[in-house]
Amino acid sequence: MENTRLTSYEEVAEILRGCDNVSILTHKSPDGDCIGAGMGLCLYLRSLGKKANVLNSDGFPDRFDFMIGDYQPEVFEEQFVISVDISDTTLLGDELEKYADRIDLCIDHHGSNRFFAKKSYVDAQASAACLIIFELLEHMGADITLPIATNLYTGLATDTGCFKFQNTTPSAHIAAAKMFEMGVDFEHINRKMFDIKSRGRVMCEQKLISEMRFFEDGQIGILTATNKDIADFQIDRSELDAFAQIPLTIEGVRFGYTLKQQEDNPEMFKVSLRTTDADAAAICGEFGGGGHLRASGCTVEGKAREVMMKLLEVTRKYL
Amino acid sequence: MENTRLTSYEEVAEILRGCDNVSILTHKSPDGDCIGAGMGLCLYLRSLGKKANVLNSDGFPDRFDFMIGDYQPEVFEEQFVISVDISDTTLLGDELEKYADRIDLCIDHHGSNRFFAKKSYVDAQASAACLIIFELLEHMGADITLPIATNLYTGLATDTGCFKFQNTTPSAHIAAAKMFEMGVDFEHINRKMFDIKSRGRVMCEQKLISEMRFFEDGQIGILTATNKDIADFQIDRSELDAFAQIPLTIEGVRFGYTLKQQEDNPEMFKVSLRTTDADAAAICGEFGGGGHLRASGCTVEGKAREVMMKLLEVTRKYL
Repeated sequence: MENTRLTSYEEVAEILRGCDNVSILTHKSPDGDCIGAGMGLCLYLRSLGKKANVLNSDGFPDRFDFMIGDYQPEVFEEQFVISVDISDTTLLGDELEKYADRIDLCIDHHGSNRFFAKKSYVDAQASAACLIIFELLEHMGADITLPIATNLYTGLATDTGCFKFQNTTPSAHIAAAKMFEMGVDFEHINRKMFDIKSRGRVMCEQKLISEMRFFEDGQIGILTATNKDIADFQIDRSELDAFAQIPLTIEGVRFGYTLKQQEDNPEMFKVSLRTTDADAAAICGEFGGGGHLRASGCTVEGKAREVMMKLLEVTRKYL
Repeated sequence: MENTRLTSYEEVAEILRGCDNVSILTHKSPDGDCIGAGMGLCLYLRSLGKKANVLNSDGFPDRFDFMIGDYQPEVFEEQFVISVDISDTTLLGDELEKYADRIDLCIDHHGSNRFFAKKSYVDAQASAACLIIFELLEHMGADITLPIATNLYTGLATDTGCFKFQNTTPSAHIAAAKMFEMGVDFEHINRKMFDIKSRGRVMCEQKLISEMRFFEDGQIGILTATNKDIADFQIDRSELDAFAQIPLTIEGVRFGYTLKQQEDNPEMFKVSLRTTDADAAAICGEFGGGGHLRASGCTVEGKAREVMMKLLEVTRKYL
């Protein structure tokens, strides 16, 4: 199989002009960037009179409804397959796994991209897949409608933490300025994506924070969510993932732990670790887990207090 | 007294070129925008060989140290007075009150500006006072050094909630793109301004949120910080400014009030109002305050409960 690496928007543009009956693949556990890039590209292709659909293994969560709008899948005989914001075929998920060896064009911004498609345009410097699609559409002289711009802005904003993270670039800001001119309701989008939490979640967060434990002069912070907390505040377990960021927002914390009691086994805790400068993967590795340098996870057996003691013993070696 | 309204950067530029021995006034309870605009302007005037200082009634809180850098006040015979980010002389504070009727030039972005200065440049569409200073310096062909850009970015980011709020404009994004090119360490700034909180502050937030009051089916949310809370958690009063954003993060809240008991008068509350769609300036205007369309403030007399009742009565007209 050829694995061509495309290096210019014009090469990608030429392919898009020539294709039709397109399936656009997005990654499992979809986020704002893959949905935005997929929907943005799909709406553009449709505006050219082509047939196109956006596919996902898990379906799109409700909170992205404003991006989907009145989009409906079409029926056609698939001729061309594009993946967006996907670095590896393992991210296709169960439903889309079957496409793994027949993706014609991959558009992505992950440096870890495995070049699994016949042709790939990967720009690891791009803040978001949506930024690539936006600049590509500009290059093609597209009429970027409000629904397209809304999708692309959402992906750009969510992947950069609303222009806060290291991956934000001058190009990201310039694209945002243009999207504003196109009438994107950024205030509504940002509020929905970043600010609004259910009252239950806010109250749960506050309780867990007030019960946080600190050790070693506040360098180690441990937040624990028990099954009782989750039930009391009627929190969806998926919402708990965001809690992993909390300990590190407290001044002085270098090791931020979040312990989540397992639903099916109260003497088992899923542990998330975020670090400012220490090797999180190595620490979690000592418990049979792993992950990234500053964000890792593991599972530890015991009552909450015992788990905490085990984690502290290991963490002290990394202080 | 003449009260000239300036309408172009060139008019302001001409004044800046002609002035020397300048005192730049910033508002009491200083925030990132007034410090950034004051410091940015001061550093630029000094780079032209002029003498200039930035003054504040309350001093600059420690967390803005990175903006102050190695700035030191100079000794000179004051000849010219500029105010930045000040909409009304009541915001000068005790130390700077004496300047109220002798401000030569006012540079501001509040629609509620009272045109108290001899000459005023007010652009209510500008996202931040720092954005006005940035565009002004660009107009003047200034060499915008890294310390100047760092100050101006900080004000722009903090006043727009890192490009999240309704007051963000295409110009704000374009300016940010240019500031990035100038080498501003936006990741560090944003982490410091938005993410990291002292443990006392986190615990204080937790308590105040758990005590929040909700009215009208949760459309009105009121958070109250008393002097006792501030003392108990050893919170710096400047940190309380950020609390103003909290009520609106709770699902369903359209009117987010934060009440801050005044240190010197426990029967007086400084009120911040954030709204999703209602006219915050109009509501605060009914109490003699003002500000922006979605972010305003006022001062209301009474015990906490009385203040709450007064606010509710007025707010119900805007539901």
